[in-house]
Amino acid sequence: MPHIEITHGLPGISGLFAQRPDTAAVLSRLAETLLRGASPLGRGERELIAAHVSNLNCTAFCSDSHSAFAAAQLDGGAGLVASVLADVDTAPVTPLVRALLKVAAEVQAKAAPVSDEAIAAARAEGATDTHIHDTVLIAAAFAMFNRYVNGLATDVPADPSFYDAAAELIVNHGYEAAR
Amino acid sequence: MPHIEITHGLPGISGLFAQRPDTAAVLSRLAETLLRGASPLGRGERELIAAHVSNLNCTAFCSDSHSAFAAAQLDGGAGLVASVLADVDTAPVTPLVRALLKVAAEVQAKAAPVSDEAIAAARAEGATDTHIHDTVLIAAAFAMFNRYVNGLATDVPADPSFYDAAAELIVNHGYEAAR
Repeated sequence: MPHIEITHGLPGISGLFAQRPDTAAVLSRLAETLLRGASPLGRGERELIAAHVSNLNCTAFCSDSHSAFAAAQLDGGAGLVASVLADVDTAPVTPLVRALLKVAAEVQAKAAPVSDEAIAAARAEGATDTHIHDTVLIAAAFAMFNRYVNGLATDVPADPSFYDAAAELIVNHGYEAAR
Repeated sequence: MPHIEITHGLPGISGLFAQRPDTAAVLSRLAETLLRGASPLGRGERELIAAHVSNLNCTAFCSDSHSAFAAAQLDGGAGLVASVLADVDTAPVTPLVRALLKVAAEVQAKAAPVSDEAIAAARAEGATDTHIHDTVLIAAAFAMFNRYVNGLATDVPADPSFYDAAAELIVNHGYEAAR
């Protein structure tokens, strides 16, 4: 049961957004900026980072949501996303994306400088300052979103088709239309 | 040395904001909403939560910044803030603020539901749903800000008076004017 009343009965961050439109507005804008705004990383690649961090943080609502959003925007679909969540080392992603997923995992683990080794590995695969900045900030943002959703003990959807419907909305209309 | 080029030579999040105005705009709006927008918690109390979480995350730039912002807006000033950072159990804060600082520390530690005990302790001191929501979201947001600032290995200010100047700007004009 959630720690605060969710009058609209919606799961995860959807319930928190319906409950608190003031904070929902700026959090939706942040998600739109980071996951769909200008970046050298594709939208699907950024959703993959969000799904990976959420999975490492054991936040089912966010992991399942962003896995669906990544699957809808990557050629490999749900199979590719599942392989990343299972094992980044063997998943069929590009060497650059693999190196950035490892940078993201370091950010997920603690608020400390990303190791020089992880940065050098990403640089060796062609990462620019913008790739590194965007990866670190997306991973950091999911340290927040995951804590918000899990910390308040929100519900997960009763029906898994919730995520597919959310994916259609996000992919076609974005995070600010979805709330 | 920072992991990405900071052309303006500014420390901490100030350098990241100058480098990336696109993400700075929404992150500043988030800080303004959470720390200075409508809430049953005073601005000084919210800055105290931000300083406490940043200190637990060992993020000197954020801990020193938000300690200065809290000190400028609380009757106890810098002494009170230092006592909270040293030991929440003995610091001269209200029982409600002490209970909320403990909720924030649980959010800082991991992306898991806050314990029923910590929530019950806050409720016993008069916490409403809004107190609990705002505390969890502020603590979660500093899981992000701290990871952004530390993950990219940004510099701390060479001159500690940086924080006092920042406090004057934030307290009088807010986060969106400051960037």
